[in-house]
Amino acid sequence: MKKLAELQDIISEALNRYTLPAQPAELYEPIRYILTLGGKRLRPALVLMACDMFGGDVEAAVQPALAIEVFHNFTLMHDDIMDNAPLRRGKATVHEKWNSNIAILSGDVMMVEANKLMMQVDDRILRPVLDIFNETAQGVCEGQQYDMNFEQHNTVAVEEYIDMIRLKTAVLLGGALRIGALIGGASIADAENIYHFGVNLGIAFQLQDDILDVYGDPKKFGKQVGGDILSNKKTYLLIKALELAKNDDAINLHYWLAARTYEPAEKVAAVTEVYNNLQVKQQAEEAMSGYVEKAYQYLTAISVAENQKQFLQEFADGLMVRDY
Amino acid sequence: MKKLAELQDIISEALNRYTLPAQPAELYEPIRYILTLGGKRLRPALVLMACDMFGGDVEAAVQPALAIEVFHNFTLMHDDIMDNAPLRRGKATVHEKWNSNIAILSGDVMMVEANKLMMQVDDRILRPVLDIFNETAQGVCEGQQYDMNFEQHNTVAVEEYIDMIRLKTAVLLGGALRIGALIGGASIADAENIYHFGVNLGIAFQLQDDILDVYGDPKKFGKQVGGDILSNKKTYLLIKALELAKNDDAINLHYWLAARTYEPAEKVAAVTEVYNNLQVKQQAEEAMSGYVEKAYQYLTAISVAENQKQFLQEFADGLMVRDY
Repeated sequence: MKKLAELQDIISEALNRYTLPAQPAELYEPIRYILTLGGKRLRPALVLMACDMFGGDVEAAVQPALAIEVFHNFTLMHDDIMDNAPLRRGKATVHEKWNSNIAILSGDVMMVEANKLMMQVDDRILRPVLDIFNETAQGVCEGQQYDMNFEQHNTVAVEEYIDMIRLKTAVLLGGALRIGALIGGASIADAENIYHFGVNLGIAFQLQDDILDVYGDPKKFGKQVGGDILSNKKTYLLIKALELAKNDDAINLHYWLAARTYEPAEKVAAVTEVYNNLQVKQQAEEAMSGYVEKAYQYLTAISVAENQKQFLQEFADGLMVRDY
Repeated sequence: MKKLAELQDIISEALNRYTLPAQPAELYEPIRYILTLGGKRLRPALVLMACDMFGGDVEAAVQPALAIEVFHNFTLMHDDIMDNAPLRRGKATVHEKWNSNIAILSGDVMMVEANKLMMQVDDRILRPVLDIFNETAQGVCEGQQYDMNFEQHNTVAVEEYIDMIRLKTAVLLGGALRIGALIGGASIADAENIYHFGVNLGIAFQLQDDILDVYGDPKKFGKQVGGDILSNKKTYLLIKALELAKNDDAINLHYWLAARTYEPAEKVAAVTEVYNNLQVKQQAEEAMSGYVEKAYQYLTAISVAENQKQFLQEFADGLMVRDY
């Protein structure tokens, strides 16, 4: 059994060995560029971890794991165009460094590359692996569309929001685990269990992210506290606050959502006060705990020895920090 | 054996029955929109024709044929963004009717849909069919990148141009035929033969298109004669003319390529005169005939009875009009 750090090293080495055609350079250089911007390589590591957990040969899962990483970076490349984002991990985004056309087309060819990598599995599991991959890819696209839609909507229901983050973020974690499980020889039932473990954990992780953006210790998480508040991002906290706010809270919240010029710190403080009045942090934490609990139920249901689950358990614990 | 028109009808009916999820509407409506803009459905019909020619059940090829059509329309949707094209078949392009973000993301999900459709083949041929499809898709992306690159280059060699049109246009015809052949039970050798038939025919077809743009009868082909000349498009004719022009021809050609304000008809007439002086039409026709001949050699090499090749032969004859 291999630890997360070991698996991340395997992914890094595989990425170093991963070669793309040289020409046309405009098509392939942006792919090499985005793949070397770094990141924790958690998604591909999950493919390996699931394979390992079911007693599979981790080597057999390396190319499909790269497929997940290439696919993930393809979505980042296209999302960055759509979000008009200048930076990705502190470096220029592909559409900024080159141009939008190159970012569109390089992204398209990454999707093809991801499919080619994903096909490097035994014939026996080729069809189920690709079915999961296609379903995952489609879900991620749908999630991105819902996310863009929500920016235009005045109200979003909590259920719609959860469904969006499930599609945009969580199904890829679930899909990575499920594919790794199949490569490792898991039963259909266990592959489903690990999928739902990943999806529920992913939703919990995104809810935690929403909480940390407002209540996180900036020294610990290296994020600008209140970024979501300043951009009026429809997070769980804001959606819940809009649902619950009455009287002064409602007036204040709508005032700050509509405000055009303000001191950033003042807006963050005022909106946080509304959140505090309405106890939306506690409600987000409750929702988050519910998804964490569900995730652990699915982990428990997996029919491997408990000590085999150790690293996945540690991964989940590491993802869900208790102390912020 | 089924005629082209019959096969096109099968595709039309299958497209009518083809369903996509209802939500998110912003993601799926543009796909329905572009798929109903029409077109001759030649690429998917080729999948069916090849299957039929090798004695396969055409029904078994319908979903992979749709995959080719969905993939083709995905490339059109993204190409239209890159080319900033306002119209497609006389209707607003997706990025004009909706916006670029929606055109990017709808295109992405079309790629997933194409993969799902392409997987609807027997397990026995799943891997080779997907290998061909991925190789084809990658080639089409590379061709589009070369095409965009050529706009920025002062000189393009004829060989580079042929390679670009091979990738951008021809490999999809070849790939469609090769996939249909595999579904129809063709041998590996015959699947390769029909692939090269399609690729060579595709190159010839594109060269014919270059010729028709300048020398075609506008009543017959419904195109604006001289469109490529007005946009300085690096066609076979222009590339060859730039290679051969000397003295007055060179001066005139470069004058018109650099001219900013002019009467369109005057530019078309002047550049056409240079083409006539240099006999580039004849040279393009010679090159075209060479590719047609090569295509027919591959058709001859296919080991089915000659009468089985009748419709593919007719298709090729129909594509390569002699009279313009």
